[in-house]
Amino acid sequence: MTASIPEKAAPAGDLPTVRLKPKANARAIRHGFPWVYANELVTDRRTRSKPAGTLAVLEDDGRVPLGLVALNPDSKIICRMLDRDPQASIDAAWFEARLRKALHLRERVFDTPYYRLAHAEADGLPGVVIDRFGDACVVQPNAAWAEAFLPALTDALVAVTGVRDVLKNASGRTRSLEGLDDVNAVLHGSAPDAPIPVSMNGAVYMADVTGGQKTGLYFDQRPNHAFAASLARDARVLDVFSHVGGFSLAALAGGAQSALAVDGSAAALTLAEAGAKASGCADRFQTRQGDAFEVLAALAQEGAQFDLVICDPPAFAPSKQALDAGLRAYERVARLAATLVAEDGILGLCSCSHAADLSAFRAACARGIGRSGRRGSLIYTGFAGPDHPQLPQLAESGYLKSVFFQL
Amino acid sequence: MTASIPEKAAPAGDLPTVRLKPKANARAIRHGFPWVYANELVTDRRTRSKPAGTLAVLEDDGRVPLGLVALNPDSKIICRMLDRDPQASIDAAWFEARLRKALHLRERVFDTPYYRLAHAEADGLPGVVIDRFGDACVVQPNAAWAEAFLPALTDALVAVTGVRDVLKNASGRTRSLEGLDDVNAVLHGSAPDAPIPVSMNGAVYMADVTGGQKTGLYFDQRPNHAFAASLARDARVLDVFSHVGGFSLAALAGGAQSALAVDGSAAALTLAEAGAKASGCADRFQTRQGDAFEVLAALAQEGAQFDLVICDPPAFAPSKQALDAGLRAYERVARLAATLVAEDGILGLCSCSHAADLSAFRAACARGIGRSGRRGSLIYTGFAGPDHPQLPQLAESGYLKSVFFQL
Repeated sequence: MTASIPEKAAPAGDLPTVRLKPKANARAIRHGFPWVYANELVTDRRTRSKPAGTLAVLEDDGRVPLGLVALNPDSKIICRMLDRDPQASIDAAWFEARLRKALHLRERVFDTPYYRLAHAEADGLPGVVIDRFGDACVVQPNAAWAEAFLPALTDALVAVTGVRDVLKNASGRTRSLEGLDDVNAVLHGSAPDAPIPVSMNGAVYMADVTGGQKTGLYFDQRPNHAFAASLARDARVLDVFSHVGGFSLAALAGGAQSALAVDGSAAALTLAEAGAKASGCADRFQTRQGDAFEVLAALAQEGAQFDLVICDPPAFAPSKQALDAGLRAYERVARLAATLVAEDGILGLCSCSHAADLSAFRAACARGIGRSGRRGSLIYTGFAGPDHPQLPQLAESGYLKSVFFQL
Repeated sequence: MTASIPEKAAPAGDLPTVRLKPKANARAIRHGFPWVYANELVTDRRTRSKPAGTLAVLEDDGRVPLGLVALNPDSKIICRMLDRDPQASIDAAWFEARLRKALHLRERVFDTPYYRLAHAEADGLPGVVIDRFGDACVVQPNAAWAEAFLPALTDALVAVTGVRDVLKNASGRTRSLEGLDDVNAVLHGSAPDAPIPVSMNGAVYMADVTGGQKTGLYFDQRPNHAFAASLARDARVLDVFSHVGGFSLAALAGGAQSALAVDGSAAALTLAEAGAKASGCADRFQTRQGDAFEVLAALAQEGAQFDLVICDPPAFAPSKQALDAGLRAYERVARLAATLVAEDGILGLCSCSHAADLSAFRAACARGIGRSGRRGSLIYTGFAGPDHPQLPQLAESGYLKSVFFQL
C-alpha cells in the first residue's frame, strides 16, 4: 500500500521533520487522508514555533516518512499533505503540474473556460480554490501555506492557463482559522472594471469578481441548474434565494414561460437582470427583493402558483451546533415553497450546509412538504459539478445537495 | 397531519377491513410510508384467508381509516397503500389518473417516448413497473394486486399513452415473494418481432423487449451515460459489463475515439453491435465476449490503456447477507479497472445493489483504486434518472449509484 512512498528516504534538504503520535491514524494518511489534526502530532516547542505555512516532512511514529506537509501550528488542521514524495520541491513547476492536471479535467468536461479550476485537496492544492472566468482567475488561498506561496502559484496559473488577470479573494471563512487576513488583492494584471459575462447551460450570467459573494458566481450548482432547465419548458418558475439568477436564467434558457427571482440582495438582483438581458430573456424575467420567507408568505397570500419552484438558501446548518435549527429552517422553506407549487409541479430544494447530510436534509424537505399538506416523489438528487472534485476520504462531508420532488 | 384522510369515514362499499397492531408505526404510514409488514397487522383467520391482491380498508389500532390497501397474506409486505382515500375505486379511471401524472413528469423531462413510465410506489402504483419503448410498453406487475388488476391497468395504459403493444414481463425477482408465476404474456396488440431502436443521449440502442434482461433496456443509467458522454471527446473508452452498450454507445455519440464493450452475453453484444451500426459509429466500436474479470486481467496483460473506463456490473450485493462479499467484488472490479486507466484518465464505477449504500460502495471503490497503486478524486456521483422517482421514505435504499473518479 505504500508503493509510491520511499520507505527509508533521507529527510528532504533542510526541511524540518514533524512526527505523528502513536495514536494517530497513519494508515488513513497513507491511504490518502490529507490532514493531520493538532492532537495527532507530536508538538514540541520547536514545532510550535514554526511560522504558519512552513513546509515539513511528516513521519509516522516509527520515523517512516509519509510525505511533505504544510504545517500550521495555530490551526486545528495542523498539517496538510502537499506531496506523498517527502523530497518534492514546492515551486512553480510543482504548481504547474497540479494545475495542468486540474485544467485537463475541466477542459475535458467544459467547452468554455468558466469553471472552478482548482478545488483544494482533491486537486492536490490543499485549501486553494481557484475559479476561472475566461481571462480572469480568482484565487482563494484559504490555508497559510498557500498564502506564503502565492507568487509561485500565480506565476504557474498564468503560465498554465494564459489568463490575463489574477485576483485574490480573501473572504473565505476558514482564513481566520488559519490566522490569515481578509484583504483582497490583484495578483496579476488588473481587476476587471465590469461584471464578467459567463455562459452556462445556455444562459449568460454576470459575475462580479471583485465585489460579489464568494468569487462572484456559484459554479457548483451547474448540473443542478441544468436539471432544472430540463424541466422548465413552458413552466412558470420561481427561484428563491436566487443570487444572480442561477436557476431562473437556466430555466428561461430551457424554455420557461416566465421566471421570478427572489433575493435579499438588490445588487445580486441587478446582476440577475443584466444576465437576463444578456441571455435575451429579460421579457420573461422578473425579480422581487426581500426576505425570502416573507416573500414566500406574500406569494402564497396572493395565490401565486408555479410549475417549478427552486429554493437555494444560504447554509442554514454551517456547523454541528446549528444542525437542529438549520434542519428546521430547511423544513420551513420546503413547507412554504410547496404551497406555491401547482399540481404535478416540481419543487427543487438545495442545501450547502456541511453539517446537514443528504439523508437528514432530504428528510427535512419531505417533512416540510408533508406539513404543507402535499406529498412528493423524489425525482433527482444532485451534488456539485465535476469541477468540484472531492477526495473520497472527505466525500461524506460534501456540502452541496440538491433534491427535486414532483408534488 | 391527516387533512386528506376522512377521520370517520364509513368503510368503503363491501371492502374488508384490516387493522394495525398498536405497536405498528401508524404515524409513518400517515406520513407516506407505503407498506405494512406482516408483523404489524392483526392477522386473524379471516384476514389470512383472503386471496393475494384483495383490496381492503386499513385502519389504525383506534379504528381510524388510513386508506385503501392491497392485501397479500402470503407476503412479508402484507399491505401496500393504494390510495389515502379509503373510499377510492380502483378502476380504469383510477389507473388513468395515476398514469397521466406519471406521463406528465416523463413528457416534461424527455423529448422522445422512451422511458420508465411508472416506477412503482413513487408513481402511486405499488409494485408496478412500466417501461415505454415508443409504441410498446412492457409491464412488470410485481405485486399480487397488480396481477389481479392487469386488464384495467392495460386499458388505462393504452388510453393514456396510445401505445399499440403492451407486453407483460414476469421475470421480476419479487414476483415469487408475492406468489406469482413467471409467465410472460401479450396484454394488448402483439409482440414486436425485432428489437426496438431507442434514442438516448444521441445514441441508438437496440431493446429486445421480449427476450432481454429486465424489460429490454436499462433506462435508469441515462443521466450517468450522459455524464460519461460529456467526458468522452477523443477518448479511448472501455465499457465493462456493457449489456447492450449503454455507456459505450453514449460515449461514441459524445465523440469518443474508440470504445470496447465487454460482456458475458453474446446476445447483448450482438444488440450492442446493432446499436453501434444504427448510431453510425460501428467503425469505432468493438466488443469482446467473456467473463469480465478475466477480460480485465487479459487487457492488463496486453498493456491496454484507456482514457475512460466504466464498469457497470450486476448486483454483487443484492442482499444484506451478500454485502461483505459484494463489497469485495466491487473493490476487485475497481482495482482491476484502475490499472487500465491512463494517467489523468477517468474511472466510472456503478452499483445496482440495494444492500450496498453509497458510502460503503464509494469506500470499496476507493480501496480498490488504492490497491492498484493509484489515487482518485471523486468528480461525480449519480443515481437513477428522473423516470425512476422514489418515495422519500424509501430513498435510503435507492439501488443505483454511479461514482466517477479522475485518477
